[in-house]
Amino acid sequence: MDAGGARLTWLLGLAEERLALVVESHGEDLATHATGTLSAGGKRLRPMLVFLCAADDAGEPLVAAGVAVELLHMATLVHDDVLDRASLRRGRPTVFATGGRAAATATGDLLFSRAFAELAATCSVPGVGWLSAASSALARGELMQRADAWSPDVTPERYLERCRLKTASLFDAACRLGALFGGQPALADPLGRFGERIGLAFQLLDDVLDVSGPEERTGKPRGADLLDGTVTLPLILARLRDPELGSLLLREEVGTAERAEAVCERIVATGVLDEVRALALDHVAGAKTELAALGLGDRERSLSLVADGVADRYA
Amino acid sequence: MDAGGARLTWLLGLAEERLALVVESHGEDLATHATGTLSAGGKRLRPMLVFLCAADDAGEPLVAAGVAVELLHMATLVHDDVLDRASLRRGRPTVFATGGRAAATATGDLLFSRAFAELAATCSVPGVGWLSAASSALARGELMQRADAWSPDVTPERYLERCRLKTASLFDAACRLGALFGGQPALADPLGRFGERIGLAFQLLDDVLDVSGPEERTGKPRGADLLDGTVTLPLILARLRDPELGSLLLREEVGTAERAEAVCERIVATGVLDEVRALALDHVAGAKTELAALGLGDRERSLSLVADGVADRYA
Repeated sequence: MDAGGARLTWLLGLAEERLALVVESHGEDLATHATGTLSAGGKRLRPMLVFLCAADDAGEPLVAAGVAVELLHMATLVHDDVLDRASLRRGRPTVFATGGRAAATATGDLLFSRAFAELAATCSVPGVGWLSAASSALARGELMQRADAWSPDVTPERYLERCRLKTASLFDAACRLGALFGGQPALADPLGRFGERIGLAFQLLDDVLDVSGPEERTGKPRGADLLDGTVTLPLILARLRDPELGSLLLREEVGTAERAEAVCERIVATGVLDEVRALALDHVAGAKTELAALGLGDRERSLSLVADGVADRYA
Repeated sequence: MDAGGARLTWLLGLAEERLALVVESHGEDLATHATGTLSAGGKRLRPMLVFLCAADDAGEPLVAAGVAVELLHMATLVHDDVLDRASLRRGRPTVFATGGRAAATATGDLLFSRAFAELAATCSVPGVGWLSAASSALARGELMQRADAWSPDVTPERYLERCRLKTASLFDAACRLGALFGGQPALADPLGRFGERIGLAFQLLDDVLDVSGPEERTGKPRGADLLDGTVTLPLILARLRDPELGSLLLREEVGTAERAEAVCERIVATGVLDEVRALALDHVAGAKTELAALGLGDRERSLSLVADGVADRYA
């Protein structure tokens, strides 16, 4: 492992220890629920972006920023699962499934609080401002998704704006925070844009995977978006190509897993998944090109690998 | 109006302006929901405690602390209304009623984020730590309330611990923050205890009002706690006195507003409301006695008036 890899592993280890401590120290009930969410894991992609966007280690504030973005991410997942009545996340039972609505709402609230408490300890007004802006964006994105549920009128532009709010905003904040606490605040804007494009690609590919499946890979039933009324780009584009999909009444005609699976097949048959995937890969490529202009040396290579990792979700 | 009153009015005015700005600046949809919650008002009791516990004005940090505690309070109300499926709060429609579960969850999340963002701008590590501790306590109290729903085995001690977590902790934090940002950090502990006792009294009397009604006064149906399974001290004590109440199966036998009203009458008939009210007034009197030992001058009189105001809720 090279020096950069060892550094990243070390920082991720510190973040993991801190995350465990944060969720364990707020009462037994909440510890049970929050620890389950924490250990369900995920890739820690957002802390990784924080650390890779930092030029130097900057000690505790940098780790705090990584922990804060992951806690905020976990908080939104827990609340989303309540709203979706989701029983599985990453192939494991959700807090909603094991503890019910109230426990999951309280767990999410706790995680929100801890995210801001972690970052506030750094005493950075711009840092807290960025996390707060991301948190607002996540809430607005969630609201937009619910407002557009089952709607036949969602445009590609509106869909992309929603992706920016509900996913890319936190990738943006993670990269900005890394620049700020890693000794290069002047790079916060361009690194934030890199994060935003990676985040858009991430969401686009996530929405492709929901249609393509299989369940063993995604940890959730195929067509879950269709079942909860979330209108994504594959469906929006497929409706323009296939008149039967165009006239489909989502709420009335896609009520079962079998029916959702059949609609997924029909979306696949239109060929739009390749189109959406190409759009995602364009964002990844664009992000890498912008990155190359920043003169980051070894970090450019690491951040490019993260970008490629996002692209590989589909491969 | 004396100088102290003019100062308080001025600070509350600044807090109100800031609250309006905070909820208006995060997208149109959220502004609509959050503004409704904000303008539904309430007494701004928590910011008032922040300001009255401050020895000097301390400018922006003090106002930020007042705004932060009120935002945190609003956030928990909005999420509680989702969990309770409550359609009315203070006699007005809730965010849950007007916007649905998703809008209310997102609105609460936004308010949580903004609470911490406001306080983080003060760059006070202990200040943020106290708000964060209060936020954890609120979540734990909420969780405890749900865990105990419909239960015949809730002890008075467990009920009081829940009140401490879900209500008194934020009164405690408000008073501490006032001491910290108002130039007397050494008084944070004793003023926090004053706040905690006032908060306990507040919750006890709130639970009495739920049984005594009338709806015109409380803005919610009589016996709302019974209907959502919340076991409060009046019921706990009344069950010990009245065997029929003692053997009542809450979940199975109190399903309608008429039935809840009848159970309320039966609780009233046991005489326990006087007992619970006396306990609350004890806490108010104790809080005032502890206050008198602190040598606060004019502020002692103002804080005593707030304590009396809490006691007057029942009168």
